[in-house]
Amino acid sequence: MVEGKINEIHGWAAKKRGLEVEPWSYKPRPLGPHDIEIQITHSGICGSDLHTLKEEWGPTHFPAIVGHEIVGKVITKGEKVSEFSEGDLVGVGAQVFGCLKSTCHACSHNLDPHCPHAVFTYNSKYDDGAQAQGGYAEAVRVDASYAFRIPGNIDALHAPPLMCAGVTVFAPMLRKGVKKGDRVGVIGIGGLGHLAIQFAHGLGAEVTAYSHSPDKKEQCMKLGATHFVNTGNKEEVEKSRHKLDYLFITSNSKSNQYSEFISWMDFEGQIVLLAIPEGHMQFSPAEFIFSEVAITGSLIGGVNVLKNTLEFASKHDIRPIIEKYPIDQVNEALQHMEAGKARYRIVLTH
Amino acid sequence: MVEGKINEIHGWAAKKRGLEVEPWSYKPRPLGPHDIEIQITHSGICGSDLHTLKEEWGPTHFPAIVGHEIVGKVITKGEKVSEFSEGDLVGVGAQVFGCLKSTCHACSHNLDPHCPHAVFTYNSKYDDGAQAQGGYAEAVRVDASYAFRIPGNIDALHAPPLMCAGVTVFAPMLRKGVKKGDRVGVIGIGGLGHLAIQFAHGLGAEVTAYSHSPDKKEQCMKLGATHFVNTGNKEEVEKSRHKLDYLFITSNSKSNQYSEFISWMDFEGQIVLLAIPEGHMQFSPAEFIFSEVAITGSLIGGVNVLKNTLEFASKHDIRPIIEKYPIDQVNEALQHMEAGKARYRIVLTH
Repeated sequence: MVEGKINEIHGWAAKKRGLEVEPWSYKPRPLGPHDIEIQITHSGICGSDLHTLKEEWGPTHFPAIVGHEIVGKVITKGEKVSEFSEGDLVGVGAQVFGCLKSTCHACSHNLDPHCPHAVFTYNSKYDDGAQAQGGYAEAVRVDASYAFRIPGNIDALHAPPLMCAGVTVFAPMLRKGVKKGDRVGVIGIGGLGHLAIQFAHGLGAEVTAYSHSPDKKEQCMKLGATHFVNTGNKEEVEKSRHKLDYLFITSNSKSNQYSEFISWMDFEGQIVLLAIPEGHMQFSPAEFIFSEVAITGSLIGGVNVLKNTLEFASKHDIRPIIEKYPIDQVNEALQHMEAGKARYRIVLTH
Repeated sequence: MVEGKINEIHGWAAKKRGLEVEPWSYKPRPLGPHDIEIQITHSGICGSDLHTLKEEWGPTHFPAIVGHEIVGKVITKGEKVSEFSEGDLVGVGAQVFGCLKSTCHACSHNLDPHCPHAVFTYNSKYDDGAQAQGGYAEAVRVDASYAFRIPGNIDALHAPPLMCAGVTVFAPMLRKGVKKGDRVGVIGIGGLGHLAIQFAHGLGAEVTAYSHSPDKKEQCMKLGATHFVNTGNKEEVEKSRHKLDYLFITSNSKSNQYSEFISWMDFEGQIVLLAIPEGHMQFSPAEFIFSEVAITGSLIGGVNVLKNTLEFASKHDIRPIIEKYPIDQVNEALQHMEAGKARYRIVLTH
């Protein structure tokens, strides 16, 4: 049996609820025959990291190392891993295990995030009871099926946000078959939104970006938006009603106006929720009937979808716009993200 | 210009809010070249009639003759009407006018109920200001495009419920492409629900009927359901989770448990709301994301969909189960319906 090279993994963990992490180390699970060990060189900060640290999505098991946009080099591989070699640049997203069996209802439908055996990258437990720890660390060991080769034209610094934000926005576009000429709206121009514009544009859609920050207009147009609607300008909003086939909601603002969003949709349009705002969404049943609009949600993306995401990003030159922080400034980076100031995603360099 | 035969139409109108109608007559609009005059022999009572009489869906313009499941014989036709002859048995549903132009965004997509010029069968105004009056009357004049030949094997007594309840449940099945083997749930086994079971069964779907009235089980199985779930029985409900591709909600109960309904759906299942319960529906955003279930609604059906509905019902022997009341007992019939005792649709004979 191959042994891992790093037998005590040093990282930055939260010891209790709140946006503060500190140096901490853990002993990883034994390196299984299908596992690889990755020396992390870059990791992204995702909104989920903040929600988890603040325990906004239920209890967090502390100490917790968050981070699920991981990029680094393979340094060890289990004896049955053939698809990677030492030195390969790979990424890991928000999921580190799924059974991937053809008998699994979720996995066989490319919905492995819904696999009953799914293990997420942090604050999640393997079947053997070990807790998964994330990317704000020097290394991680994962099943090789959940590591993805980074295409040659995407550098390690820009790859991390594709691993979660990227696949999260692209997965429902693929599944719903967004195509050339479709009218796609994106609301919430941040880490997810600025990638959603690019992926939709790459698919040939006519993209409208919605934001209450008019200063983001120029950037949105550069990213591929055809239209920009300042949601603070009533006249602009009024003109943009009943014009969308799809709306991707990446904003997790508590003040999201879902009835207003419905009014932006053409008949039978589809609204896809990608963020999990606190609180509840309220609808009148009549709104659904008189608009024939559908509302749904989408959870990250499975193995095949992640591969597609990286390939599509590579082919269509889709890259996140990032701000870079050294890992030892991770707490400052978390505060910057929390303040809504990140433009648009933060990548930690290790 | 051809003149109508009945120049003062006698019917049963509500003079004020409440479930009480009384004899009243009105002078119909002139018979246009594309119009037909129908002597009504049968008309169904729809839940919408009661909502309108009680002003639960906004203000009603009284006096109002409701009823939008109309069947009768053509007695006069405008000079440009070629598709009908005097004596033909025809039906009229919940809509009596739409522009039907290829330049109309709604009409050109078979969504004529959403046409900006749509006129509904009652409590709705034509562009010339005249109020449309419905089927609890001896006659009605409508644009021939909104009258539909009743297939030969469907008798006049059983045809009315197909004109609104039937098309309402079949329209979204057609549009969403419900097909052989799909797992379809129907909740609310009443006027709409008992037809939804038959249409879904006709399409080859595996149908599950959900009701809190176990005494409806036998009837549901006869109508084509494969499974029956008593929603009052926790164990039965527990066993039926995550198994539906579609759920058609025909119940307008205020106590509808939408989160519970989501738990009945398989990933990416679609919930279609066909009734308009009072009050609001509340969801947690996470429910959409972790289920990937979509919720939408559907409003009656356009001209082409109504033709399809009648043809499909004819071919697959789909008939409503009705209770018959003479028109002069319309008030008793309304009370019977209001009490939830109708099994499953009431047809008035004129």
